Amino acid sequence: MSVVVQTVDRADRETVDGLGHCGVATVHEAQGRKGLLASCINPIFKGARLAGSAVTILAPPGDNWMVHVAIEQIKPGDMLVLATTSPSDAAYFGDLLATSAQARGCVGLVIDAGVRDVKDLEEMNFPVWSKAVHAQGCVKETLGSVNVPVVCAGELVNPGDVVVADDDGVCVVARDEAAAVLGRARARMALEEEKRRKLASGVLGLDMYEMRERLAEKGLEYV
Amino acid sequence: MSVVVQTVDRADRETVDGLGHCGVATVHEAQGRKGLLASCINPIFKGARLAGSAVTILAPPGDNWMVHVAIEQIKPGDMLVLATTSPSDAAYFGDLLATSAQARGCVGLVIDAGVRDVKDLEEMNFPVWSKAVHAQGCVKETLGSVNVPVVCAGELVNPGDVVVADDDGVCVVARDEAAAVLGRARARMALEEEKRRKLASGVLGLDMYEMRERLAEKGLEYV
Amino acid sequence: MSVVVQTVDRADRETVDGLGHCGVATVHEAQGRKGLLASCINPIFKGARLAGSAVTILAPPGDNWMVHVAIEQIKPGDMLVLATTSPSDAAYFGDLLATSAQARGCVGLVIDAGVRDVKDLEEMNFPVWSKAVHAQGCVKETLGSVNVPVVCAGELVNPGDVVVADDDGVCVVARDEAAAVLGRARARMALEEEKRRKLASGVLGLDMYEMRERLAEKGLEYV
Amino acid sequence: MSVVVQTVDRADRETVDGLGHCGVATVHEAQGRKGLLASCINPIFKGARLAGSAVTILAPPGDNWMVHVAIEQIKPGDMLVLATTSPSDAAYFGDLLATSAQARGCVGLVIDAGVRDVKDLEEMNFPVWSKAVHAQGCVKETLGSVNVPVVCAGELVNPGDVVVADDDGVCVVARDEAAAVLGRARARMALEEEKRRKLASGVLGLDMYEMRERLAEKGLEYV
Amino acid sequence: MSVVVQTVDRADRETVDGLGHCGVATVHEAQGRKGLLASCINPIFKGARLAGSAVTILAPPGDNWMVHVAIEQIKPGDMLVLATTSPSDAAYFGDLLATSAQARGCVGLVIDAGVRDVKDLEEMNFPVWSKAVHAQGCVKETLGSVNVPVVCAGELVNPGDVVVADDDGVCVVARDEAAAVLGRARARMALEEEKRRKLASGVLGLDMYEMRERLAEKGLEYV
Amino acid sequence: MSVVVQTVDRADRETVDGLGHCGVATVHEAQGRKGLLASCINPIFKGARLAGSAVTILAPPGDNWMVHVAIEQIKPGDMLVLATTSPSDAAYFGDLLATSAQARGCVGLVIDAGVRDVKDLEEMNFPVWSKAVHAQGCVKETLGSVNVPVVCAGELVNPGDVVVADDDGVCVVARDEAAAVLGRARARMALEEEKRRKLASGVLGLDMYEMRERLAEKGLEYV
Repeated sequence: MSVVVQTVDRADRETVDGLGHCGVATVHEAQGRKGLLASCINPIFKGARLAGSAVTILAPPGDNWMVHVAIEQIKPGDMLVLATTSPSDAAYFGDLLATSAQARGCVGLVIDAGVRDVKDLEEMNFPVWSKAVHAQGCVKETLGSVNVPVVCAGELVNPGDVVVADDDGVCVVARDEAAAVLGRARARMALEEEKRRKLASGVLGLDMYEMRERLAEKGLEYV
Repeated sequence: MSVVVQTVDRADRETVDGLGHCGVATVHEAQGRKGLLASCINPIFKGARLAGSAVTILAPPGDNWMVHVAIEQIKPGDMLVLATTSPSDAAYFGDLLATSAQARGCVGLVIDAGVRDVKDLEEMNFPVWSKAVHAQGCVKETLGSVNVPVVCAGELVNPGDVVVADDDGVCVVARDEAAAVLGRARARMALEEEKRRKLASGVLGLDMYEMRERLAEKGLEYV
Repeated sequence: MSVVVQTVDRADRETVDGLGHCGVATVHEAQGRKGLLASCINPIFKGARLAGSAVTILAPPGDNWMVHVAIEQIKPGDMLVLATTSPSDAAYFGDLLATSAQARGCVGLVIDAGVRDVKDLEEMNFPVWSKAVHAQGCVKETLGSVNVPVVCAGELVNPGDVVVADDDGVCVVARDEAAAVLGRARARMALEEEKRRKLASGVLGLDMYEMRERLAEKGLEYV
Repeated sequence: MSVVVQTVDRADRETVDGLGHCGVATVHEAQGRKGLLASCINPIFKGARLAGSAVTILAPPGDNWMVHVAIEQIKPGDMLVLATTSPSDAAYFGDLLATSAQARGCVGLVIDAGVRDVKDLEEMNFPVWSKAVHAQGCVKETLGSVNVPVVCAGELVNPGDVVVADDDGVCVVARDEAAAVLGRARARMALEEEKRRKLASGVLGLDMYEMRERLAEKGLEYV
Repeated sequence: MSVVVQTVDRADRETVDGLGHCGVATVHEAQGRKGLLASCINPIFKGARLAGSAVTILAPPGDNWMVHVAIEQIKPGDMLVLATTSPSDAAYFGDLLATSAQARGCVGLVIDAGVRDVKDLEEMNFPVWSKAVHAQGCVKETLGSVNVPVVCAGELVNPGDVVVADDDGVCVVARDEAAAVLGRARARMALEEEKRRKLASGVLGLDMYEMRERLAEKGLEYV
Repeated sequence: MSVVVQTVDRADRETVDGLGHCGVATVHEAQGRKGLLASCINPIFKGARLAGSAVTILAPPGDNWMVHVAIEQIKPGDMLVLATTSPSDAAYFGDLLATSAQARGCVGLVIDAGVRDVKDLEEMNFPVWSKAVHAQGCVKETLGSVNVPVVCAGELVNPGDVVVADDDGVCVVARDEAAAVLGRARARMALEEEKRRKLASGVLGLDMYEMRERLAEKGLEYV
């Protein structure tokens, strides 16, 4: 039952980069508010905003053997996504693995567990979104799988899905919906620019979104 | 039962600014160690230290309709304070709402829930103290209330109360106690400067505070 | 039962500094993956990497009297380590105590509770690893002990143990194992440099660590 | 600032008992879904369903001195409600205090902290709703207050408010709203009996509540 | 995007009941240690052990409208499985909905949120596995979906999957693997009976599983 | 570094049983309020009250190999105490291991992790105090140690220490202090009986403990 799937379809690079540029909040909205990982997943340093194609890892608690296996499967532009079979905050990843992953073209890591060497990772500009910063070492004893569907921080991630990540967290877009979501995300960004200008000028959302009538119907009372 | 209270008494601006200058720890001590929000409320970026008059929001889980309603009630120098009727880490607030609030003179947000667009908020210098950074979108379907008393992160906040916030967290001062608390806070700061000099010179707290006798009475043994 | 132990053996300064230079992850590995504090303990600001000899404090919940007592026991190069008799996130420590501790030569604080004045502490370059940032004040009513063995964030710390801390967290090294651990840590660092070069050049961990055969034996299937 | 308020208005006994009979879920709905304590508060044994008038306690972390003070203020039919000035899971209460409280006519305890001797408490039929079962002892060193407004598990409780508790948790009803809430709760119970019969006979909520049209308007699609 | 899928394939009743008889731990092992929901999901009363076919619900936070919609889709032997789009501990379910679901043949509920009327549910013998017991009421304003794939407490559940639940928690078996898993589970139970007899007679696992040699090879030292 | 210590001194059986009879709260008080495990450790069924001599296990996350090793070291009257090297809620223990342990005379298990087959364990009357009930299976790949000092749920436990457990939780007594603690615990129980009678008759703790004067000195005001 431990497998490494070697053939993964990925979205084209322009779509992936486009989604990364839009950012998590916009992409999450553009695809109907789905795909967002739980709020316990946070960046280890601020300022990264990007997307990659998911190479998924399902790993036992406290065992990072499969990370080595996964790195061989990385293609340039990929993002590692690690889920565990049982909760763990051990460090599955540090500067050596990041060096190896980065040499293969990996753009980052999303992990529902811990990470260490965070200062080095920031200096390498290798972004990680994790549940914990923790130095606890891992063993290499038990198999897991690579490039199988995983549930990471409450969301299903399939290999090849587009993983968008920034300071707000992480959002997953199904590969075959990526182009359409990008279109809607860009449209949304254009609209938001217009809204931002109006709001900055002092127009109220109550008026811009024409909310007053519906609020009154629902029974809101001003006293 | 969903109301918007439009008349709120606020403390005068000098008192509010004075309390902001003193900071959370000093104000908390100066008012007898009350009013401090729970430690799960943290700033989304470092370095802000300020105070504002509370415009309170009571919102349903995952529903930020009332934020739009509240923004109309903002006067320059106000701080939004959002509590939920049931726990939520959804993002009730992001860059568009911040643009609108800032245009009305709002100085920040304290929220017992989530916030998104945190990079934009930092660039706008709009400080937020929240329980989570999370991009999860909200609906606009269910009423709540604005400017009613709320319990936010374990503390009662009345509209018009002074909300002091910095890197240490958030503390609430009742409006009618604000001037007196400011007086005590300033006195405390003056005293602390003197203590700091002594301690920096090597004087021990044991001696400065004359603790040795009472420790011995309580039975502390040196071995 | 409340005692202050005044005689504490410490590791020599070169060993302590050497361990601090190696950092938490390396030291943790070098001593067989033990001694790491729980992942809830995090630095209040980034970038500090150092070690000190433990002066331990066992304190009641919400009562920081023993911190004053402990400061008298500090020798240059010491690190305060505070555990509580019952969970607390109150602020046992702030800028005044840091001023006093720093004047005695204290290099930092590890605390399974809260801390405040974090902006001042960063400006003073006094590093703290804590469970919470919180301004909640403490009383001085109940005794605890100083320089007794304590369990801090899940790890046993004896007075005089070497406490290593950086952005990855905190690791404790038994005083009488410190020199040996330092030797192994330095050897490890030398080896890692070599590995890092290989991995950066594109060599896979699968090959460098000769993992392929054992993975196959365990039954890993490539599909 | 440490006070014991000796004069507390209470709701009449019939109203209190009536609310207890209705139970938490019904009372919570009948008063517009407010007043419910956080879900971390659970009964130490199953089966109790009752209400009492709140005698409130605000206590320091790990210090149960004020419980002794509060017991003197108990009148038959009262419920103790304990909040802390800073989070604690220490045991503020056990069989001796329960014996004393019960002798004064106290009907139970709601506590945002810990409790011990839970087996004895069940044998005494003294119900407790708490955040933790924990044997950690308390000191008697620092004052708090009795019969002041407190925030307990996220809800404001005023002395004399009606506290309703059962296996679902705890709900607070303002004293001056108690009679009206009881009326609405009883009306609700009568209606629910009718609904229950219909639903048991196989009528769907979709039909009984006439939801189908509104669901369709909102855009629900059956596929 | 809000849909109700009306056609769901289910495993045959004998297979479902067989898996329920085997229980969670055995089924979890028999399918290779996958499919187990997170440990935060617990039964509201002890002693139930059963399985049902999943009717899945994806619901907004604090909004239980879709439960009414789902009940129409229930066939005898089904188990409701509710996941939320954002974390919530509100009560999506109580005695009225249980009455309705039970009238349709529903055998239980698994919910990554709260439940209320737990005393009534136990008296009705309607078992629920939930994250919280909480009386917080829900609104009926926002659509979700019924019988779509959901992630519930960290596990993917497809409509028609077999949901096994007992005092140990909840495990999901893919519908098309159910028969095979049942076969392995029964084989496992037979083997366990034999092992249990041996162990009860004093034979050690070390000997029964022939572990001593491998332990020695790994380097275990007896001192 | 993986060892099994085969020689462990234990307290005599009368002392162990005596401490078990006194119960957790009394023993915790009698030894100066130390030794109590964290409140996250709870019994899987109610009503057990007993003590045993600790056979300690230090186990990797998700790996229960060492439990088999430990069972060989059990002597009648022993209690297994399991700590992990990194947090885990996997099930290290179930009915087969309980059968084996019970056959060796083991009286129970304290585990800072998960347990399964809880219904069987209750039927066997094999009590367990755990952090979680969870069916997640363990592997047998990585060594740990048996009968070394461990930190379990925040407390240091040495092999041979007396572990007292009941519905209130778990308390550890150092082996060489056990007899003295038992003496103090019995004295305390005798005193408590007298106090209980007085309190039941209506005497207030304020009077029985002569607290009124000290409360007044501290500044408590009655209004």
